[in-house]
Amino acid sequence: MNIAVLGTGNVGKALSGALAAAGHVVTMGSRTADNEAALAWTADNGVLLATFADAVRASELVINATGGGFSIEVLKSVGEDALAGKVLIDVANPLDFSKGFPPTLSVCNDDSLGEQIQREFPSALVVKALNTLNCELMVNPSKVPGDHVLFIAGNDADAKAKTVALLWEFGWPAERVLDLGDISAARATEMYLPLWLRLMQSLGHANFNISVLTGNAP
Amino acid sequence: MNIAVLGTGNVGKALSGALAAAGHVVTMGSRTADNEAALAWTADNGVLLATFADAVRASELVINATGGGFSIEVLKSVGEDALAGKVLIDVANPLDFSKGFPPTLSVCNDDSLGEQIQREFPSALVVKALNTLNCELMVNPSKVPGDHVLFIAGNDADAKAKTVALLWEFGWPAERVLDLGDISAARATEMYLPLWLRLMQSLGHANFNISVLTGNAP
Repeated sequence: MNIAVLGTGNVGKALSGALAAAGHVVTMGSRTADNEAALAWTADNGVLLATFADAVRASELVINATGGGFSIEVLKSVGEDALAGKVLIDVANPLDFSKGFPPTLSVCNDDSLGEQIQREFPSALVVKALNTLNCELMVNPSKVPGDHVLFIAGNDADAKAKTVALLWEFGWPAERVLDLGDISAARATEMYLPLWLRLMQSLGHANFNISVLTGNAP
Repeated sequence: MNIAVLGTGNVGKALSGALAAAGHVVTMGSRTADNEAALAWTADNGVLLATFADAVRASELVINATGGGFSIEVLKSVGEDALAGKVLIDVANPLDFSKGFPPTLSVCNDDSLGEQIQREFPSALVVKALNTLNCELMVNPSKVPGDHVLFIAGNDADAKAKTVALLWEFGWPAERVLDLGDISAARATEMYLPLWLRLMQSLGHANFNISVLTGNAP
């Protein structure tokens, strides 16, 4: 599949590298197509580099791995026409580090970044996913033993099914991908970030995830 | 130990009943001491009933199991003098159901109910705990098999140690009580509630909890 990964940070690199290794044609989207560090990394990893807009135009599925504070602006530079009808997997978290660590969320409670993106680009098929764990674990779940899980949320069932299929390629069995419902459930996974950050501080590293254990229904 | 449990709802009943069964002298705090339904329940369960203020005055440890929207008002009716130096375990979540289900939080992101209570009553030893799971599971963790966890947060190490000891009486091994740090970590556990609520909707029941799985530190 032709896949655009928007963002050249650690998350974009982890996702691009894993998708290219799995045989996809990956175009990493960047603000400019001539960023030297990004050009070197993409050349070394079998990934193409283009502007955000060109990366999306070349691809049938888009992953937003930009910083949450810039995601809407980046997607506006792409434009809705290029996003229309495409699965847009939103991995970003709206973290605001302006007041130090731990960061706050720039949107939460009665809205979320996932919902903002879906509202701003109504013809894109937004699926919130992968935003609740470290980027190395995203593409290599066996780094943490056990049946830990991730969450998806979105309005389009087919887009969620395509996301589940892509996650399977990273090593996530479908039964460990929990569907929380429509895109408004992005609030739930984004608001988990403060707990994730506190756990990271307590543990001293980011190589962890949660599982959901259930007993009998009452 | 003499323990006050503030609140006569399901959470207050579950905690009071379990603490009384464990041999503690439990006084359930209510707005009035002559609520007939509460009087009947407390008589049946070996628990005393008193006003919020009288319950706290009779006790060396206090559990806030009132609705999060009323907790500050209830504790103000008790007064700081009665709370001074006492461990105050805050189980409440600041859920706002005024816009329907799922509820939003009336405080979050850069503040929390746990912090509000600690600020309002600086001489109380506030420990946020038990607010991330169903009340039946709070007092009977074996209802869900496996090493699921709960979280504590607070500024006073001795108060947290006393809370861990009390949780042990409910069946929580100390290694399954994760200390997230000072009371500002109450933000993290309160902001987990939207994810808990979505999971409850997906699962169709509340008999679940999360575990934290870790891999090797990178």
